[in-house]
Amino acid sequence: MRYELYYWPTIQGRGEFVRLALEEGGVDYVDVARQRKRGVAAMMKIINDRRAKRPPFAPPFLKAGNLIIAQSANILLWLGPRLALSPRDEAGRLWAHQLQLTVADLLAEVHDTHHPVSSALYYEEQRAVAKECTAAFWKHRVPKFLGYFERLLDKSGGNYILGRGVSYVDLSLFQVVAGLRYAFPNRMKRFERRIPRLVALHDRVVARPRIAAYLASNRRIPFNEEGIFRRYKELDQ
Amino acid sequence: MRYELYYWPTIQGRGEFVRLALEEGGVDYVDVARQRKRGVAAMMKIINDRRAKRPPFAPPFLKAGNLIIAQSANILLWLGPRLALSPRDEAGRLWAHQLQLTVADLLAEVHDTHHPVSSALYYEEQRAVAKECTAAFWKHRVPKFLGYFERLLDKSGGNYILGRGVSYVDLSLFQVVAGLRYAFPNRMKRFERRIPRLVALHDRVVARPRIAAYLASNRRIPFNEEGIFRRYKELDQ
Repeated sequence: MRYELYYWPTIQGRGEFVRLALEEGGVDYVDVARQRKRGVAAMMKIINDRRAKRPPFAPPFLKAGNLIIAQSANILLWLGPRLALSPRDEAGRLWAHQLQLTVADLLAEVHDTHHPVSSALYYEEQRAVAKECTAAFWKHRVPKFLGYFERLLDKSGGNYILGRGVSYVDLSLFQVVAGLRYAFPNRMKRFERRIPRLVALHDRVVARPRIAAYLASNRRIPFNEEGIFRRYKELDQ
Repeated sequence: MRYELYYWPTIQGRGEFVRLALEEGGVDYVDVARQRKRGVAAMMKIINDRRAKRPPFAPPFLKAGNLIIAQSANILLWLGPRLALSPRDEAGRLWAHQLQLTVADLLAEVHDTHHPVSSALYYEEQRAVAKECTAAFWKHRVPKFLGYFERLLDKSGGNYILGRGVSYVDLSLFQVVAGLRYAFPNRMKRFERRIPRLVALHDRVVARPRIAAYLASNRRIPFNEEGIFRRYKELDQ
């Protein structure tokens, strides 16, 4: 099975959580919109296909044979058992998915820090509100979300959040730590002493051979100011 | 199986999407935090249980035997087949879940209209930004989200969004229409001419005997200014 991932070609964004799973799974996949021949046009063609019975609302989506699956957490729910990145039993798979949905909630709040008013406006048009939003995010939300994952790591009984085996949730938590470090280097530096297990998990994921190879390749798009995690000096004080 | 739903007792909120499914499914369930004897304390006990291996991050969560499932879309994913409110095949179940996750994304944006800066602040402290956020939401996001569901209804081949049979997604779309009507009566009145199929779906759900009985009962908490959909005159102009 050759998987086709469709996502914006110049950002990590929500597609990155799927990319990390495909890379760790060691499977054959194409990042379609990044291919010169097909590009974003191939992605938009599927989104705008008025004959499609089940069109995706937005990228990312994954094509696997005739199946098209959208919503990153939904894609990972489906991919998990196929890539050996989620538990075999139903309760375990639901638990992994539940955590992934909590990661998705966190990501929406990260995006809101720089775009609290509207995604249709430039950051510069909502900078003052973004400062307020970011302050509240770091005061209330980061401790709540990351504190939760830190506690789970404490009681997981293994090196990873579900226990002994790595799962797509671990890959996503690596991305969260890496993203917060990119976007808020000063704030994150101060905060990291409160989440030693999450930092250790980040390092453990980075050291996995397939992830290390991926991160060193040009398949990994660098962080930038178009994605979820954006670095703006004035939000990091 | 007697289900236990745990959610804040005074709001519809995200718990309502689960309540609607349990009601339409006609199953035995307890809305635990609304019971005089157990109340919110019973809910917080589970959330704060430091010995729990899989504690929920936040309500709503459902207890079914020993299983505790959180995240409303995840709960519906699990309940769907058990209540005959989702397709039998895997692709159909993924599609229903994908739509539910898109509803969840919309709900987060609805909440942001009145709390764009932070949930930790009062509405009155962010009213000016809320006005801007609401304007952008109605200009860009409502047409995109509801237009998407309207198109799906057009091609579903039946009275419901997945075709001939009702699903939990239909119940959720009813709640979205009802909620937008409550929060933004003027805006919604103008907008409804663009979504005749969604309005018809809303009416069809309301007419279902179990839903009609539920809506007429005191199990249905009225809309109010503590939930996702809040009515503020100044946001509805």
